[in-house]
Amino acid sequence: MKHFTQFESLSLSKTLIQSALAYKANPLIDVQKGFKKRIGCIFLNPSLRTRASTQIAALNLGMEPIVVNMDKEGWALEMREGAIMNKGTVEHIKDAAAVLGSYFDILAIRAFPSLTNKTEDIEDFVFNQFIKYSGKPVISLESAIRHPLQSLADMITIQEHWKEARKPKVVLTWAPHIKAIPHAVANSFAEWAIGNDHDVTITHPVGYELDPIFTKGAHITHNQAEALADADFVYVKNWSAFNDYGKIHSTDSSWMLTEKHFEAAPQAKVMHCLPVRRNVELSDEILDGSRSIVQEQATNRIYAAQAVISHLLG
Amino acid sequence: MKHFTQFESLSLSKTLIQSALAYKANPLIDVQKGFKKRIGCIFLNPSLRTRASTQIAALNLGMEPIVVNMDKEGWALEMREGAIMNKGTVEHIKDAAAVLGSYFDILAIRAFPSLTNKTEDIEDFVFNQFIKYSGKPVISLESAIRHPLQSLADMITIQEHWKEARKPKVVLTWAPHIKAIPHAVANSFAEWAIGNDHDVTITHPVGYELDPIFTKGAHITHNQAEALADADFVYVKNWSAFNDYGKIHSTDSSWMLTEKHFEAAPQAKVMHCLPVRRNVELSDEILDGSRSIVQEQATNRIYAAQAVISHLLG
Amino acid sequence: MKHFTQFESLSLSKTLIQSALAYKANPLIDVQKGFKKRIGCIFLNPSLRTRASTQIAALNLGMEPIVVNMDKEGWALEMREGAIMNKGTVEHIKDAAAVLGSYFDILAIRAFPSLTNKTEDIEDFVFNQFIKYSGKPVISLESAIRHPLQSLADMITIQEHWKEARKPKVVLTWAPHIKAIPHAVANSFAEWAIGNDHDVTITHPVGYELDPIFTKGAHITHNQAEALADADFVYVKNWSAFNDYGKIHSTDSSWMLTEKHFEAAPQAKVMHCLPVRRNVELSDEILDGSRSIVQEQATNRIYAAQAVISHLLG
Repeated sequence: MKHFTQFESLSLSKTLIQSALAYKANPLIDVQKGFKKRIGCIFLNPSLRTRASTQIAALNLGMEPIVVNMDKEGWALEMREGAIMNKGTVEHIKDAAAVLGSYFDILAIRAFPSLTNKTEDIEDFVFNQFIKYSGKPVISLESAIRHPLQSLADMITIQEHWKEARKPKVVLTWAPHIKAIPHAVANSFAEWAIGNDHDVTITHPVGYELDPIFTKGAHITHNQAEALADADFVYVKNWSAFNDYGKIHSTDSSWMLTEKHFEAAPQAKVMHCLPVRRNVELSDEILDGSRSIVQEQATNRIYAAQAVISHLLG
Repeated sequence: MKHFTQFESLSLSKTLIQSALAYKANPLIDVQKGFKKRIGCIFLNPSLRTRASTQIAALNLGMEPIVVNMDKEGWALEMREGAIMNKGTVEHIKDAAAVLGSYFDILAIRAFPSLTNKTEDIEDFVFNQFIKYSGKPVISLESAIRHPLQSLADMITIQEHWKEARKPKVVLTWAPHIKAIPHAVANSFAEWAIGNDHDVTITHPVGYELDPIFTKGAHITHNQAEALADADFVYVKNWSAFNDYGKIHSTDSSWMLTEKHFEAAPQAKVMHCLPVRRNVELSDEILDGSRSIVQEQATNRIYAAQAVISHLLG
Repeated sequence: MKHFTQFESLSLSKTLIQSALAYKANPLIDVQKGFKKRIGCIFLNPSLRTRASTQIAALNLGMEPIVVNMDKEGWALEMREGAIMNKGTVEHIKDAAAVLGSYFDILAIRAFPSLTNKTEDIEDFVFNQFIKYSGKPVISLESAIRHPLQSLADMITIQEHWKEARKPKVVLTWAPHIKAIPHAVANSFAEWAIGNDHDVTITHPVGYELDPIFTKGAHITHNQAEALADADFVYVKNWSAFNDYGKIHSTDSSWMLTEKHFEAAPQAKVMHCLPVRRNVELSDEILDGSRSIVQEQATNRIYAAQAVISHLLG
């Protein structure tokens, strides 16, 4: 693994999950490993969990994290090759990325999609420019199309809860929202759950089909009730339309999960990456009840990041 | 002490003052105490002194402070229980607080009042939500109604300057301002000065009565000259009306302290929490003269925070 | 050297360059030197390179850097002596600077010019207020009229590339831009290049004369082609008019450097402080070609800062 941007293989995923669980049991076992190494945490967008958990993961490894809020503290970035920069952008990403690469041992970058320029988004253009020009290992803190640290934390959480021999039935269900939301979490969760050989079902209203590149191997249905039946883990997430790119086609509130939805899946655990819009995506009764493992997912963000950083340190 | 949010007892206050003075004499005596412990400094509002001094206090104890500017870097927080989150707020405080609690050993939080919703403010609603949901020791970096780290620093500063056997006469005087200012500093100063058994007088124009919960035991007068006579320490602070909540009733500039006001209190030291509006709250001649101990108060913010954090570390 | 704000002497410059090169060869040779010392990095303006490189330099010396984004996280500063602060400013710089001075061992400050108040700018008023009131060593992270850490990094870069016995011909050329840009980088580069006894030529269109205080000893010409002939190093930078203060007189795109401009200077290296507006100040072909040493300059920002901080630590 040269960068951490996506699911690569089942064996690497297993290695990272085991490493994360070892760090969770003893966060400081490798506290000397990153002595005087620096990770630059570059934010082009807001962040709470990712910002804090990545810093803590680095500190657990003895590294010195430095946060750069590129969107607020730095200069507006130009992304287009060959641009004549006589407008609002002040620095080209190729220059900024090269400088940051020369300053840090590892870069971790958050760069959300535009949700308007589909071509650029699906190429993960901004994120890949950092990879192209920084010359250093790059960790995705959520790119235009993937959120792999979240998904690794999700896989850790599922493994902690699943002790049976059979594959767990893992359901990814679309949920209502009031805004156009990126596909990154949904894409990555599908990619990692399928890659980890779980029994994956994806359910959403008509028009919310995800990019098939991420969902190959999943059972896909528009019938949420059918999807939820006998589920072991239900991942709740909104996303905007992919085909009719970035649009909102439905906010049908019947898709919001409540306890009633779980009559045919009494043991199912409910997952969400947070932040969650309560009583829009998920009801209070679910989030505040014993079915919810969203806080465990959030806690595991530390150990997912720690496993990944440690792996990149070598 | 489980959290540090208010004056609890004279004996605890004395313990913290002694601890702070010991740290001031030798900041690094406990430099190993907080090894690989993290304090999350959560700001919902601006800060200069508090931001820097809390980080330095934590570093003096060997901790790793992480700042989260929730107002700028994170997600807009929903505060209402049971809210249907289909508006501007992105994350419920109960979810954010629980995540932050799982990430940090101690949380330190700044959450100003609305000055419009009196009920919510006097319940210290936002601050108490963090306490309720984080599950970790919480330090107030100024809440809607109290600023206890400031008050502890103030008590330290008074003790450093007061070597006589008799109680010092401590005066809290309202000062003019152009904006509606919270009551937190005034409330806390009254609470701590009375709790520390000083001889406390509070003076303000009619209509600026503070919440009596904080001022019980103080002599209260609308006659500033009478209050200042023979004062040993004069704390200058603006606050908006409490009864007519958050309103400005007077900006009477005669209440601004100048040297002339100290004819009957020649030895009095002048205190202010900073930031101070010069020549509105206090004249340049006072602030730049030998009577002012405002910079000592600011310096003592480090050691107040260090004593509190150390106490919570156990 | 008590503060680091400008070129002081050739011998000090040589000392700092040698120190920086030693740190570049082995960044951690003095990793204990700054144990539990703190540098406060105070930003009144945006920053990428300066922000990250200064923190890394401090960390290389074992210091604990703390960033204060005064423009975003703190209080609006009043600058005028004797001001009646009944408007938008919340804290006087004399109070803020004194507090910061009491909190930190070294202060590093970025304070851009207004480009409207020439008198205040050329006095470097804001920056000097920090020096006046903080009582601690102050490092300029770019002031209204100078950017000495950039210039020191530039001198280091020139020294790394220049092995001949003769003086290098160093050219500072004005470049087009769409905005009114400060003079700090141009002033400082001239000051340091002349002070380092290089053969310095400055070229710009009529009306862009720099403050002669910085350019004494340089050959100045309006003929860019003549200036570039036989150049060894060409520093490209826009600046607004100094005499007609802060104005833009020309954006003549023929001044933008392309390969064509280097026919009479085939060996010339091209320098820029970054951020650079590509295809406005400098062409892609230059920036992406072997002539450009802009990334080396950026990397040397770390070691310039490290040499300066180390010198101030004593």
